[in-house]
Amino acid sequence: MTELFEALETSPVGTRRPLNELLGRLRFGADGLLPAIAQRDDTGEVLMLAWMTRESLAETLATGRVCYWSRSRARLWRKGEESGHVQQLVELRADCDGDTLLLKVRQTGPACHTDRPSCFYLRVAGEDVIVSMRREVDPSQT
Amino acid sequence: MTELFEALETSPVGTRRPLNELLGRLRFGADGLLPAIAQRDDTGEVLMLAWMTRESLAETLATGRVCYWSRSRARLWRKGEESGHVQQLVELRADCDGDTLLLKVRQTGPACHTDRPSCFYLRVAGEDVIVSMRREVDPSQT
Repeated sequence: MTELFEALETSPVGTRRPLNELLGRLRFGADGLLPAIAQRDDTGEVLMLAWMTRESLAETLATGRVCYWSRSRARLWRKGEESGHVQQLVELRADCDGDTLLLKVRQTGPACHTDRPSCFYLRVAGEDVIVSMRREVDPSQT
Repeated sequence: MTELFEALETSPVGTRRPLNELLGRLRFGADGLLPAIAQRDDTGEVLMLAWMTRESLAETLATGRVCYWSRSRARLWRKGEESGHVQQLVELRADCDGDTLLLKVRQTGPACHTDRPSCFYLRVAGEDVIVSMRREVDPSQT
C-alpha cells in the first residue's frame, strides 16, 4: 500500500488529489496489467472483466472510448473494434488500494463475444450451472 | 478456451450442465487464483474485487459465506472474520470463458477496510480524483 492510498483511507468526502498522482500510484501487476470491471451505467449490470495497461487506460481517458489490453492477442483492444459493440466511458473509479478499476460505461449492443448482454451468463443453481441470458443476435448479421 | 465454454457460447437459455463440470473447467491462473467481483444483490453496487482459490470457492459454495484468498496474507480470508463485515452469497455466476466470477452478495456493514460502503470510492473527475463515499464508522467502535 502506498502513501497516497493510506492518506486517502480516512480523508473526508470531497477530498481531491491530482489524477496524475493517482495514475502514477496505480498498482499494475508484474505483467503490467490491472483488472478493470465494466458496469452498465444505467442498470448497474456487471458486463465483463478485462485488463488494462497504462497505455490503454491513458487512451480510454483521452478518447472516452474504452480500450483494454487483450491478453490473448497481446495488443491494445479497442472494445467493439470488430463487433461494433463499443463502450463509452461514463465514469472511472479506482479502488482503495489502487489495484482494480471500475468503469461505468454506456454499452452499444451486447458486451459479450457470445452476443449475450453480459459475459456473466452462467448462473450456479444448486448442483447445476444454467445458461441464463439470451443471445442478442443482430438480424442483419444472419 | 475449453470445449465446455465453446459449447455453451450458443446454447439456448435454460441449458444446464453439472456444476462440478464447470468447477473443473474454471481457468485459475498460474498462481491458482481467479478474480471474483462482489456486487450487492439489492442495489447492484460493485463492492470489491478479490481473489479465490479452488478451496475458497468450494468453501463459499458449501457455507454460503464468502471466503476469498488473501494475497497479502497468503491464506484463506473469510470476509469479515475480523471486522464482522461478512458477505452472504446470494448468487454465483461465471463468465463466458471461465476466468472470472461474479458474486451477488448480501453485505453486512461496509465492504471496504476504510469503512466506506464500497472499495471503489475514488472517482475520477476531470484532472482530479475525488473521495466520493463517506465512511460508515460504527459508533460503538469509536
